[in-house]
Amino acid sequence: MKMKQNSPITMKDIARDLGVSVATVSRALKDSPRISEAKRKEIQEYARDHNFLPNVIAETLRKSRVQPNKVIGVIVPQFIHYYFASILKGVEEEASRRGYRIMVAQSDDKYEREVEICKSFYANKCCGIIVSMAKNTTKYDHFQKLIDMGIPLVFYDRICTGVNASRVVVDDYMGAYTAVTHLIDTGCRKIAYYGMVQSMEIDKNRFNGYEDALRKHGLKPNPDWLRKCDNRADAEVVTPEILAQPDHPDAFFAINDDTAIGILYSAKKMGFDVPDDISICGFTNGNRAKACNPMLTTVEQRGVMVGEEAANILIGQVEGSLPMDKVEKRVVRTRLIIRGTTR
Amino acid sequence: MKMKQNSPITMKDIARDLGVSVATVSRALKDSPRISEAKRKEIQEYARDHNFLPNVIAETLRKSRVQPNKVIGVIVPQFIHYYFASILKGVEEEASRRGYRIMVAQSDDKYEREVEICKSFYANKCCGIIVSMAKNTTKYDHFQKLIDMGIPLVFYDRICTGVNASRVVVDDYMGAYTAVTHLIDTGCRKIAYYGMVQSMEIDKNRFNGYEDALRKHGLKPNPDWLRKCDNRADAEVVTPEILAQPDHPDAFFAINDDTAIGILYSAKKMGFDVPDDISICGFTNGNRAKACNPMLTTVEQRGVMVGEEAANILIGQVEGSLPMDKVEKRVVRTRLIIRGTTR
Repeated sequence: MKMKQNSPITMKDIARDLGVSVATVSRALKDSPRISEAKRKEIQEYARDHNFLPNVIAETLRKSRVQPNKVIGVIVPQFIHYYFASILKGVEEEASRRGYRIMVAQSDDKYEREVEICKSFYANKCCGIIVSMAKNTTKYDHFQKLIDMGIPLVFYDRICTGVNASRVVVDDYMGAYTAVTHLIDTGCRKIAYYGMVQSMEIDKNRFNGYEDALRKHGLKPNPDWLRKCDNRADAEVVTPEILAQPDHPDAFFAINDDTAIGILYSAKKMGFDVPDDISICGFTNGNRAKACNPMLTTVEQRGVMVGEEAANILIGQVEGSLPMDKVEKRVVRTRLIIRGTTR
Repeated sequence: MKMKQNSPITMKDIARDLGVSVATVSRALKDSPRISEAKRKEIQEYARDHNFLPNVIAETLRKSRVQPNKVIGVIVPQFIHYYFASILKGVEEEASRRGYRIMVAQSDDKYEREVEICKSFYANKCCGIIVSMAKNTTKYDHFQKLIDMGIPLVFYDRICTGVNASRVVVDDYMGAYTAVTHLIDTGCRKIAYYGMVQSMEIDKNRFNGYEDALRKHGLKPNPDWLRKCDNRADAEVVTPEILAQPDHPDAFFAINDDTAIGILYSAKKMGFDVPDDISICGFTNGNRAKACNPMLTTVEQRGVMVGEEAANILIGQVEGSLPMDKVEKRVVRTRLIIRGTTR
């Protein structure tokens, strides 16, 4: 695997020659303000003097890899999860239509596994990686390295704002805003929010949508009804306590369907009628939403479309129809599915 | 990706330097009689003079092969399906533990896609393939070709009896037998069966388990209560008709949870109490089983274990700890999960 004699200098070479990291070189060449002007100038001059050609390099790197390899690596937290299965379906279908295959792995939401998987996807010559970041990932070197090697990354669901990469998200804010507006429009005034999972972008956006919908209608959230709760077991503990109070909510908005179902059965058990006494809205629209009784009103996340968009961006970057250095941000619209738990 | 200065000469280099093909160099170095003695001598001398090291070359060749390829191809009918997602989880976890990655694709239960996927898994150098056969597959050439190429196959769920390949199944017969015995033990005597999907091995086995459990207890199936029905929508049409008859079943055994849930809500809508008037048992134990009210008694299929066993057999055959030519048949035990829809 010999290179041509006059092969151009790479970012790695520049980094080694100047005793800095590849990430620093990359940033300097992108005019990033994250490094000092002196350093930036030094690196840029060195690159120019040594005929650094960013496109040629990227091209050479891509070609010198063992395979053109129409294989996309996909990292999901878990396969057994309706939303992630939907995303896989969307990625695979778009990939398949365009002649690509997918390699998949579960991070189990663990940083260490995520790093391992990135390495092994690289070793397996994946042409790009679609990933939802693990919950406890706080260092991004493994992502930056891939980008530096010319491997495009596309984030979905839990996006990484620490690297310069494309992303596909659903409009969590609008999803929550529309759902809570529906609760208000159908006569609910005292609306509780279950979620409040710290450090999750999607929770923040959904909470803001909830809050803004209330404000828009002259209502204020009752702090006692904002609960840290994102699963059924917890909802079955928290809900009876809230509903036992004389002044209790007439509606609940939950961060996912599982939690909403916990609220539903807790309320019914206490003798409340759903939706006449209590309205409930979830978020996901998985299989569970139609299995409960009454069927759940919920915000559909459209995972298949998220997966398709992610594959679409990635393949565009691999094939050159989308520029590698431009961050593509796409938003997939959620959709309120009105069923039996709201009036 | 520059090589060290003193990297050894390769067959490619020799071929270029002497103006012959790589194949010719390879033959010369192997003392093949297929090329002239003069040419052979010239090439061998040149190789010796330039410190050609066959082992290093072999190593290089091996490394430059498109893949060392610890990649298992997995074909599922659909990602958005609890059982198949569980199987993927099991395959991926076992593969991951043993240093393998998985490439996955959906057949959508279509023969043509299955053939395409097999071809592309081969082209992508998968070391073996784990597959549930598509519903309309009746020709097996695409499987036989893989076996002939030395690529081991392992079937799960919908197994192919037309080729000599290993398989992992769940004990559908015992699952059904145990479930129906539980219905009888809790006082049910008139037990309906929803399934009867022609040509499906799993349905046949479950039906036999149902029938044998009845026989063992001196009961006989009522032919009018054996219905071709494998989804909720159909169950919601068939069930009211059956329950409207004066002599109606006191229990239902359904081929999957979705169908069982259709029976459950149809019965409740007609004013029957579940389980006091009517008992219901499903098969799967997916997310739905705990979302319905009351929660569903069902036979758990243990997809994770099925996936682990399949990966275990495949890797054993790839690595030589299991013989390639012996068909391995493993049975994963089902488990009856008793919940609220039975007494």
